[in-house]
Amino acid sequence: MEKKSFNKYRFFDPDEKVGKIAYDLYSNVKKLPIISPHGHVDPALLADNKTFPDPTELIIIPDHYIFRMLYSQGIKLESLGIPTQNGEGVEKDRRKIWQIFGDNFYLFAGTPTGAWLLHEFAEVFGIHEKLNSKNAMKIYDQILGKLSTKDFLPRTLFEKFNIEVLSTTDGAADDLKYHKKIKKSGWKGKVIPCFRPDAVFNLISKNWKSEIEKLSEASGIEINSYKNFIKAVENRREYFKSNDAVSTDQGIISPYTHELTKNAPPCHFQRALNGKADSNDASLFIANMLMEMARMSIEDGLVMQIHPGSMRNHNEKIFEKFGLDKGADIPLQTEYTKNLYELLNKYGNDSRLTLIVFTLDETTYSRELAPLAGHYPAMKLGPSWWFHDSIEGMTRFRKSVTETAGFYNTVGFNDDTRAFLSIPARHDLSRRVDSNFLAGLVAKHIIDIDEARIISHALAYDLVKRAYKL
Amino acid sequence: MEKKSFNKYRFFDPDEKVGKIAYDLYSNVKKLPIISPHGHVDPALLADNKTFPDPTELIIIPDHYIFRMLYSQGIKLESLGIPTQNGEGVEKDRRKIWQIFGDNFYLFAGTPTGAWLLHEFAEVFGIHEKLNSKNAMKIYDQILGKLSTKDFLPRTLFEKFNIEVLSTTDGAADDLKYHKKIKKSGWKGKVIPCFRPDAVFNLISKNWKSEIEKLSEASGIEINSYKNFIKAVENRREYFKSNDAVSTDQGIISPYTHELTKNAPPCHFQRALNGKADSNDASLFIANMLMEMARMSIEDGLVMQIHPGSMRNHNEKIFEKFGLDKGADIPLQTEYTKNLYELLNKYGNDSRLTLIVFTLDETTYSRELAPLAGHYPAMKLGPSWWFHDSIEGMTRFRKSVTETAGFYNTVGFNDDTRAFLSIPARHDLSRRVDSNFLAGLVAKHIIDIDEARIISHALAYDLVKRAYKL
Amino acid sequence: MEKKSFNKYRFFDPDEKVGKIAYDLYSNVKKLPIISPHGHVDPALLADNKTFPDPTELIIIPDHYIFRMLYSQGIKLESLGIPTQNGEGVEKDRRKIWQIFGDNFYLFAGTPTGAWLLHEFAEVFGIHEKLNSKNAMKIYDQILGKLSTKDFLPRTLFEKFNIEVLSTTDGAADDLKYHKKIKKSGWKGKVIPCFRPDAVFNLISKNWKSEIEKLSEASGIEINSYKNFIKAVENRREYFKSNDAVSTDQGIISPYTHELTKNAPPCHFQRALNGKADSNDASLFIANMLMEMARMSIEDGLVMQIHPGSMRNHNEKIFEKFGLDKGADIPLQTEYTKNLYELLNKYGNDSRLTLIVFTLDETTYSRELAPLAGHYPAMKLGPSWWFHDSIEGMTRFRKSVTETAGFYNTVGFNDDTRAFLSIPARHDLSRRVDSNFLAGLVAKHIIDIDEARIISHALAYDLVKRAYKL
Repeated sequence: MEKKSFNKYRFFDPDEKVGKIAYDLYSNVKKLPIISPHGHVDPALLADNKTFPDPTELIIIPDHYIFRMLYSQGIKLESLGIPTQNGEGVEKDRRKIWQIFGDNFYLFAGTPTGAWLLHEFAEVFGIHEKLNSKNAMKIYDQILGKLSTKDFLPRTLFEKFNIEVLSTTDGAADDLKYHKKIKKSGWKGKVIPCFRPDAVFNLISKNWKSEIEKLSEASGIEINSYKNFIKAVENRREYFKSNDAVSTDQGIISPYTHELTKNAPPCHFQRALNGKADSNDASLFIANMLMEMARMSIEDGLVMQIHPGSMRNHNEKIFEKFGLDKGADIPLQTEYTKNLYELLNKYGNDSRLTLIVFTLDETTYSRELAPLAGHYPAMKLGPSWWFHDSIEGMTRFRKSVTETAGFYNTVGFNDDTRAFLSIPARHDLSRRVDSNFLAGLVAKHIIDIDEARIISHALAYDLVKRAYKL
Repeated sequence: MEKKSFNKYRFFDPDEKVGKIAYDLYSNVKKLPIISPHGHVDPALLADNKTFPDPTELIIIPDHYIFRMLYSQGIKLESLGIPTQNGEGVEKDRRKIWQIFGDNFYLFAGTPTGAWLLHEFAEVFGIHEKLNSKNAMKIYDQILGKLSTKDFLPRTLFEKFNIEVLSTTDGAADDLKYHKKIKKSGWKGKVIPCFRPDAVFNLISKNWKSEIEKLSEASGIEINSYKNFIKAVENRREYFKSNDAVSTDQGIISPYTHELTKNAPPCHFQRALNGKADSNDASLFIANMLMEMARMSIEDGLVMQIHPGSMRNHNEKIFEKFGLDKGADIPLQTEYTKNLYELLNKYGNDSRLTLIVFTLDETTYSRELAPLAGHYPAMKLGPSWWFHDSIEGMTRFRKSVTETAGFYNTVGFNDDTRAFLSIPARHDLSRRVDSNFLAGLVAKHIIDIDEARIISHALAYDLVKRAYKL
Repeated sequence: MEKKSFNKYRFFDPDEKVGKIAYDLYSNVKKLPIISPHGHVDPALLADNKTFPDPTELIIIPDHYIFRMLYSQGIKLESLGIPTQNGEGVEKDRRKIWQIFGDNFYLFAGTPTGAWLLHEFAEVFGIHEKLNSKNAMKIYDQILGKLSTKDFLPRTLFEKFNIEVLSTTDGAADDLKYHKKIKKSGWKGKVIPCFRPDAVFNLISKNWKSEIEKLSEASGIEINSYKNFIKAVENRREYFKSNDAVSTDQGIISPYTHELTKNAPPCHFQRALNGKADSNDASLFIANMLMEMARMSIEDGLVMQIHPGSMRNHNEKIFEKFGLDKGADIPLQTEYTKNLYELLNKYGNDSRLTLIVFTLDETTYSRELAPLAGHYPAMKLGPSWWFHDSIEGMTRFRKSVTETAGFYNTVGFNDDTRAFLSIPARHDLSRRVDSNFLAGLVAKHIIDIDEARIISHALAYDLVKRAYKL
């Protein structure tokens, strides 16, 4: 029997009529296999299939959704066990950290993190109490106890979670050894890579040269010219594809697309090789590489994903001390109509290309993204992303894009997560919110229940499979 | 008896209390005459009063809402019968096209186009089945059969639709012969023109010179100078007014308004006459003409409408092959506070001016447009437009502007349509959504039912009549 | 017994389940003392404690929310008794003005002003009729009668309103004599000042020099250099603090923050002293002073508030004739991620700073403000402000920020009002809307009722007390 705090009608409209339709729709899709075409789970996890460490290392330390909220309330990252770059000054006592988490769990009320954690505790660990100061150690022990059992090995959970496909995200020079190891192992779980070349496209990042060297080595192509660079990128895409990749992914500041004249990219590239590239070189080069990646996608069939509009590492002190992905990436206003103009004009009419666009700027949903996706055959809308991967965020997404782009220019859900354990929670939340949105349309007599059932299935399973060519 | 798919409570809040109030409010306005002060129906339709052609030509070919959605899913425009500029390669088999429409009708689930079509099929043709692959030919034949009867002649439908006034949109040099023909015919339907001078204001459009020649001819004024150009514009406004026009309309990229110093406009204009105007000339000239049009409106009393923020013909390939209005106009972010500053400072305090502003950028509703309309006597807010002429779009509009601008700084609904048959569907949807919004306010005890009834009537009928001086 | 037009379930979701939870939550907070940490009530009102004048002077003339709406419908400000700068041409007949108000009260249907006035009439004056043309004079007399009684003296109302703390807003050179008078009087009402230095920070305002002179005099520091200017500002902050101030407030166009190199601010300042500062000097100087104010806040503990994005006095004619604050301040699009970068990087990790940010640009709620407040310990989100201090506006705020920033990075409600009588109405509306938002979360099983009760109390009372260190 479910506990009150984890009600089976959760996230549905309080109106009984809508709630019942939503529950009915949800019931038909809740057990569908999970397709996770975009995320950041470490493939080593499933390659090595080792026992998970303690609850703190499993749940708190890798999840910037959790520790950024605690940090915003004045709790030091060091005290939460977040590793510093130099390894110093970090709390080692995992129980002490978990106690802080328990003391402050109330901060997550009304947030998706809160909802995911409740689901995770309940469905994965069978814990139906809400975490608090008093029960923190008890719950720590409960989780710790389970983690040491065979039922909680990564592959067992993967199967229990009913994951049909899980895509990771991998650098251009990655040898994909963990993906290979999984395949060789005979285990049938499908874990596929995604080609993310950001590190080799950003001419002015500190590590660019070493990344280029890695790319050289991985591709066996000496990257001493732009021409060879392109060859190496194509080579690696081929390598990824031969290792089951179906997509590429690019995180960019602006989605500006522009094909440079023949001589320009070699110049930008050469300046970068000479350590003399500036931010203008860098942004033009990326605009050009977006065009190149679209061309390559048409040639090799990999789905192209872009994620614009995050200003990474806004907090320099945190970045210097703790590194990347510490909850200090802040969205920026983003423009698509003009920025995607060149790419869409050159490749947008070509159905061989699938360009999936995500955004952190919700103002573009109805103004730019839905009209573009509602016209260009190549363009599709990724689900509401990151800060918007939430009950209200997803609802705003559907309300803003459906009337212009319909359901069939969207591509289903992806969890985009680093937190393996949260995958079912996130898909469940998404299936509930979509069911509820559809139930509202049915209750308002905009669509009928038969249509809703078909669309519900499409949003949970069919669209993602089709969009990512799985 | 109404079918389930066309429920009388459609579009209303599922909550019974709200739904009943909404239905009650709606019932009192649903039969009010339609005033359509802004749209794109071809006046020849009502002047000639000919039998409508087949369903495909009537419903699919002129409606970019329909074919852009099909196109976004990879269906070629040629295969939908959309005429190419050179007339080649277009599918001629109307039944084949209709079958594609039937096969893909599910794409419109949850879109306003879907809702309008259901209404049109049901209320105009008495067809209550949803179109699909199987019934496509049957429905084609049903519609075709009706079209050949007298009941489906344009004027008969105009009367059946209970249209009190229908405004078309007409170029500055238009001779308004169809409007005159209607008047002469003795038929009592009121079809009035609206003065849209975009073609003669855009100094850098390909056809500008030929448009200026037409304007010269129409006005009898030789347009060899800016001064004469202004005279010709004033002359044509007068001509339109004497032919029952009540308004002007301008589609612009940016609503930037700026009165140039005396010598500047003649220079821009002269450069254009010499074929040497650039984009800077063009945008300054339009900024200046917005000021001029406001001045003229104060003088001759025509209501001034502006529609900023659409990037026309985003898809060049489609534009070259098929021309204008093919579903590839994409909105841009738009700014009003600074851009309208000069116009509102010069003319905004003058109640003789009515400036009706539409937008495709919903972010400006609460931030800029409602505060401006909630202060300046001359400024009024047009209804939610184009991509936002929808259930959610209209709801967002009311929710975003009412608290700052109230109801009485808005101007009722307009359908803005090219599709004559969709007029009642669009007004019905609007009356339902407004009734539902008001019902929500009543149910939340923000206004009482008596106020709601008065406002409901105002939104459906009184405000549009007053704003457009009809 | 409450009248139908002033229902006890007002503003709650019509769904009975939600409405009941909302009412339950609201019932527990409705009688909590009011903390008003940010507003514009004149302290002289409570220092002098004089009988209020007539209803027109009390309710219409000081309230730009009211008269801007009337003005937008073509009613002249002169005819509403709004004082002109030269004192000429203003209607003196208070009953005539009130009659216009009654004739046009229907314009406020669906606006917060309408809701506040209904509350004020009902709760403060016991008048449950809605104002209209017919009852205008009767209601005028009813109010007038009450105003002359002791029960309606400002201090009596302050106590009846259950105000625990009321903060005013005061210029940098203000001697705070009314605050001192209140304290000396022995009356226990807590009325505290807030330090607002805008007039001395804006190098290019007409009155800057005279403001600097006043600041010189008030601080006893000759302001002939930037260095002394900073000393004088620090001196006045200290003076405010010693007179119970807990916060500072800055109204700015853009939240751009930038610490100038050592020599720059003295140069800008000197140019201003010489009457030669330009708009570039002015905006750089403000960017620099935002940095300085943050530094000072860390040193003296005053809470820092910023209010960006209003273009003041958009209507020049109204400004020239009637002066400031006449309903013609119009919001502008605002950017926070890049603009606050420098301030947050320097001071945002320091928990000694509390930076409370308000906005008129709702697009930044989920995109920029919630992610920033959900990370930086120093930053908190002020409530939905001005045009957004409304039922829909507050609901959008909670829906947009909660999922990323949670409840505990917000700071409760403030009324920001000049209209003393509207204080309870505004807090009541806010408590109702927050209760309703929480009730929705409970009904959707996102939080449980016990959590909701705690959060409800926090939003109405605890958070504001903590954030403003009261």
